[in-house]
Amino acid sequence: MYIMGKNCIGEVLKNSPTRILEVFTSQRPGADPLYQELEKRNIPIRETSKKKLSQMVDSESHQSYVAKVRERPFIHVKDFLRDPKDKSIVLMLDSIFDPQNFGAILRAAECFGVDLVIYSKNRGADITPVVAKASVGASELVPISRVSNLAETMKAFQNEGYFALTADVGEKSQSLYDTNFPEKTLLIVGSEGKGVQPILLKKCDLLVSIPMMGKIDSLNVSQATAVFLNSYCMSSSDPQDLRGS
Amino acid sequence: MYIMGKNCIGEVLKNSPTRILEVFTSQRPGADPLYQELEKRNIPIRETSKKKLSQMVDSESHQSYVAKVRERPFIHVKDFLRDPKDKSIVLMLDSIFDPQNFGAILRAAECFGVDLVIYSKNRGADITPVVAKASVGASELVPISRVSNLAETMKAFQNEGYFALTADVGEKSQSLYDTNFPEKTLLIVGSEGKGVQPILLKKCDLLVSIPMMGKIDSLNVSQATAVFLNSYCMSSSDPQDLRGS
Repeated sequence: MYIMGKNCIGEVLKNSPTRILEVFTSQRPGADPLYQELEKRNIPIRETSKKKLSQMVDSESHQSYVAKVRERPFIHVKDFLRDPKDKSIVLMLDSIFDPQNFGAILRAAECFGVDLVIYSKNRGADITPVVAKASVGASELVPISRVSNLAETMKAFQNEGYFALTADVGEKSQSLYDTNFPEKTLLIVGSEGKGVQPILLKKCDLLVSIPMMGKIDSLNVSQATAVFLNSYCMSSSDPQDLRGS
Repeated sequence: MYIMGKNCIGEVLKNSPTRILEVFTSQRPGADPLYQELEKRNIPIRETSKKKLSQMVDSESHQSYVAKVRERPFIHVKDFLRDPKDKSIVLMLDSIFDPQNFGAILRAAECFGVDLVIYSKNRGADITPVVAKASVGASELVPISRVSNLAETMKAFQNEGYFALTADVGEKSQSLYDTNFPEKTLLIVGSEGKGVQPILLKKCDLLVSIPMMGKIDSLNVSQATAVFLNSYCMSSSDPQDLRGS
């Protein structure tokens, strides 16, 4: 398992250093702050060519650094749900194929302290070095479940008192401005273009849209996710819950 | 001036069709909905090779479509300010170099009905076909000023009663949750990594940050911009202004 890029490796090094097994680089010793930090922390460093780095991660955006990391510890939904919570935000991704969006969503999930990110083994991209880089290392820091059936997973969360709220631009959606997030929220976001699949839409508890004032009818999915997560955090930080319901 | 990509050309065709002068494609007549729409609207279509398309836009992400568009009508700040407004949101970009972020910011600006986007001739990327595509055509739909001095421009807006609010992750920043956006707001966002330049920070009226709950200390700039714009729209849509000050 590899991750790449200076900021990505730098964040994992700062926040979860034991995940990093060794680092491959085409830089010279002490060349930049990342190299110095790796040396300080006694992470094994292997000199290699840029070409080899590109081959390792199947990408040229490695910025001269590739890290071999411990296998990502995926979380089982059952284990997650066994531990009861009063307040929790879980993010479910349906068919996010674009690696930049996937990475940016993971970054937002980490920034807003999402308890779990769920994505499908079959619908959407997997976590690649490109995704990890776009996430600035969040792919290694945020708790993640990789499931085979999103609909069943949604139901399991609903059975445990989670409110399934789908981000949707359709006419049936309620405005985000009029929405109070329940304390236990499963936020579902879908692919650009197609949105969330019908079986999830049908079974979810509420459809919510971000009011748009322009001609283009939707943000990109990573921006929309950030807006929703910020709204959840904002509403759950407000003890008086002044924003109506 | 070229733009590229199906969604990008499709949005401009839908919302501002007279901007499109002709379209170059490697697709066959009637091959897809975009081709059919171009024919329906009598836009001249030129068949050409994929290789030629790539050369025209210096990119391979054209999805077989490149459009020649009318020159983008940049707006002069003086003209914009001559027309007084009670309520207005203007977005200023400082040193946004990444074309994906630049495009996504323009898309968010269009979606949230920003009155004007300002960027610097000298600091940051210019609008290229890659930016236009990442903006899904918003680069052709949202009013834009391209200025030589951001600090002077900020001052001109402040002189006209705009409140200059900078998105900043520093310690001096106030929480977004505690922020009421003035009706005339100039929102300033800066590059990833370096943030907004000191001369703008020093002269702005308020620094505001989005509360972060994770280990990574900031969203990407296009997500942060979307969160700020959503908050502005939300607060200005609320006649009772219940969220405190």
